[in-house]
Amino acid sequence: MSAKIPYKTYLPESRMPKAWLNLKAFMPEDHAPFLNAATGKPCSAAELEGVFCGECVRQELNSTDKEIEIPEGIRSFYANFRPSPLVRAYFLERELDTPAEIYYKFEGNNTSGSHKLNSAIAQAYYAKEQGLKCLTTETGAGQWGTALAMACAFYGLDLKVFMVKTSYEQKPYRREVMRTYGASVTPSPSDTTNAGRQLLSRFPGTGGSLGCAIAEAVEEATRTPGCRYVLGSVLDHVLLHQTVIGLESKAVLDMYGVMPDTVIGCMGGGSNFGGLIAPYMAEKLQGANNIDFIGVEPASCPSMSRGRYAYDFCDSAKITPLAKMYTLGCGFMPSPDHAGGLRYHGMSPVVSKLYHDGYMRVEAVKQTEVFAAAERFARCEGILPAPESAHAIKVAVDEALKCRESGRKKVILFGLTGTGYFDMAAYKCFNDGTLKDYIPDEADLARGFSFLPSVKEQ
Amino acid sequence: MSAKIPYKTYLPESRMPKAWLNLKAFMPEDHAPFLNAATGKPCSAAELEGVFCGECVRQELNSTDKEIEIPEGIRSFYANFRPSPLVRAYFLERELDTPAEIYYKFEGNNTSGSHKLNSAIAQAYYAKEQGLKCLTTETGAGQWGTALAMACAFYGLDLKVFMVKTSYEQKPYRREVMRTYGASVTPSPSDTTNAGRQLLSRFPGTGGSLGCAIAEAVEEATRTPGCRYVLGSVLDHVLLHQTVIGLESKAVLDMYGVMPDTVIGCMGGGSNFGGLIAPYMAEKLQGANNIDFIGVEPASCPSMSRGRYAYDFCDSAKITPLAKMYTLGCGFMPSPDHAGGLRYHGMSPVVSKLYHDGYMRVEAVKQTEVFAAAERFARCEGILPAPESAHAIKVAVDEALKCRESGRKKVILFGLTGTGYFDMAAYKCFNDGTLKDYIPDEADLARGFSFLPSVKEQ
Repeated sequence: MSAKIPYKTYLPESRMPKAWLNLKAFMPEDHAPFLNAATGKPCSAAELEGVFCGECVRQELNSTDKEIEIPEGIRSFYANFRPSPLVRAYFLERELDTPAEIYYKFEGNNTSGSHKLNSAIAQAYYAKEQGLKCLTTETGAGQWGTALAMACAFYGLDLKVFMVKTSYEQKPYRREVMRTYGASVTPSPSDTTNAGRQLLSRFPGTGGSLGCAIAEAVEEATRTPGCRYVLGSVLDHVLLHQTVIGLESKAVLDMYGVMPDTVIGCMGGGSNFGGLIAPYMAEKLQGANNIDFIGVEPASCPSMSRGRYAYDFCDSAKITPLAKMYTLGCGFMPSPDHAGGLRYHGMSPVVSKLYHDGYMRVEAVKQTEVFAAAERFARCEGILPAPESAHAIKVAVDEALKCRESGRKKVILFGLTGTGYFDMAAYKCFNDGTLKDYIPDEADLARGFSFLPSVKEQ
Repeated sequence: MSAKIPYKTYLPESRMPKAWLNLKAFMPEDHAPFLNAATGKPCSAAELEGVFCGECVRQELNSTDKEIEIPEGIRSFYANFRPSPLVRAYFLERELDTPAEIYYKFEGNNTSGSHKLNSAIAQAYYAKEQGLKCLTTETGAGQWGTALAMACAFYGLDLKVFMVKTSYEQKPYRREVMRTYGASVTPSPSDTTNAGRQLLSRFPGTGGSLGCAIAEAVEEATRTPGCRYVLGSVLDHVLLHQTVIGLESKAVLDMYGVMPDTVIGCMGGGSNFGGLIAPYMAEKLQGANNIDFIGVEPASCPSMSRGRYAYDFCDSAKITPLAKMYTLGCGFMPSPDHAGGLRYHGMSPVVSKLYHDGYMRVEAVKQTEVFAAAERFARCEGILPAPESAHAIKVAVDEALKCRESGRKKVILFGLTGTGYFDMAAYKCFNDGTLKDYIPDEADLARGFSFLPSVKEQ
């Protein structure tokens, strides 16, 4: 039957998901709650609502409803770029000469170039419904900032983006896309916030980090009336919005009677990975399958494979609540040589908990191998992948090559989260042979862990 | 009925075109043939086959078969990125508050970022079938070069791209995409060809032109064994391959019982426009409709609205055969201020003939208005358009606004040929308010016309 599966399938409109899947409702145990760093007590909804939109906070704290309806106002914008295609990678299979069946869900066919738009549009919608006038956020490579700029343009909200300074300088065109959608973009650290000024005084000339940009955006949001902060990954409600990826993928594969043996996704903050695996993981948590879930992270920023499962700040200025997660410490700085994205020091609490409880595994891969896989993929499948997404390609290729050795016809599904149009400087380094691998040594890790807050529980 | 049309429709696989439409077979009169510039006689197939692939030459000279089958080997690659979506622009309609129904066919959802891949893949396929080892081509903004690099990577052909030097320098990332797909990229004019060396000696420091890059690519192809030249627009066989755009569009609109009143496309060399209008124009030529076809060109390079219908070279070094077309003269150089693409001095002989015979009309628009329309479109429809494509948006918006005045519910279809990810430098000028309009004066035009060859017929 699978021989007849088309190269590319768009889920029919009638089967499009009308609700997100709340993975937490399927987990045997809740992950540990956010803590207020000052009191050491769990954060109340009211505390969180000073920072985030009200509906997002309700979703963040909801661990009981298995489904959460996608409002009509969001689904009508989803129609703008969803369904995304589920592709049977016939050309890659041929290139690898593997008996494995490889599928990927491609989220790059929208102007933000990635899956980020799934949550951006939801968060902007809820902000608009709440009567807010503006939003703030941080962005690293710029995909999230672009997605949110698109969403804010659509709903008529002002947007202020703090962009990690190295990216701001290296990716002027990504910045320009955000401006084209009407956002204002500030390089971080900036002198417009206390968090930025403090970092600048301690580390003059620093290129910044996501953690610092988050701190600046939160500060700006909490001091501005009618304004809230939105985050593009890590948090439970973001992961919730990303479950549309997994739901569409599973709906298509179910149409063809295909069940994956392995599901692979790249992990930065963990929301795309969590969203991709959600419907299959919900089944696994109920004992209905035994899928091998593989999260892939860069060896240069190995928050899961070499991090600690501990309470930590979500930002480097230590102004956010504490989250229990795998983390390298909120002061961990990836090497500037690291070109492949996925630089965040921590990981989604949901994904962290699933990993800690043994429901999935993690692979850490080197960026030179990631770019080699990306180029191989591009030349046969056509799509130019984002370096982030190529982490998943690398491991999918490895798994498929193992099948060539063993002769096993595994079914592999991976998430292709976005395109690499704005990453050509990194591709150039790879093409020129100047891209280097960086793997933090024990001293680097110890430096990062020294930033971990002391919390009674840990 | 049209109220129920989805935002975005992908043609079902069962209805995908299996043949291109040969518009020439519907035209009451053939356009004038290519002439050998030395003899003044029509070019023989054998002469053309020294430059182009054999099958492309057969298609070029075929004005009798109404349909030409799309080989299975091409259709399987088309599956990689086709069908492209036909979008009902509900958000743009709302933004414009117009009673018009606006549809667009979006060709940008592939890594080349444009419709160019439709012909690239066909020409690479035929080259491979013929046993050729390498291809050469020119590229300006880089969309065509990228498309052909993808196609050559897929079929295992070597590719040498001559890239207009100004673009080569302004768009290093576009160049890098081609390299990632394995192509070699040379800035034009280069010192590797006679054509390049001649231009460099006459105009040291010149930024080059498409005409010169064509001359270099043709020279390289004709002196290299097992190598041919491929062109990304203008020629009849390229237009033929682009008819897949119009065929898919019409098939979707027919499914919904929608008949356009106006069909709008941007025009550089004319192949996307010709491909978009083909099935509707074939009907018009048979008296079956009276659609208003509007080709849109930049006011800075007005080959149709201010050019001459005359025999001219396709390149600036005057080594190609002569084509009868609307042209500004093969030595016409658009202003370097012109950022919006569509810089070619001539126009498809098929489109030129249709225009000359009164079956369509042309509008020339200023680039500042084009970018304003692009930004307005991006903010409501989400897609960031290529400046080239935004020429069509500009006129579609104008037409829809006229409907708001008149109250008429026109049905407007336009071609959205690609995305603007690699055009952010131009968007930046627009956002900064530094983008200028350039309109050639009579002296500029006269200078261009002075390059026209003397041919008995004209």
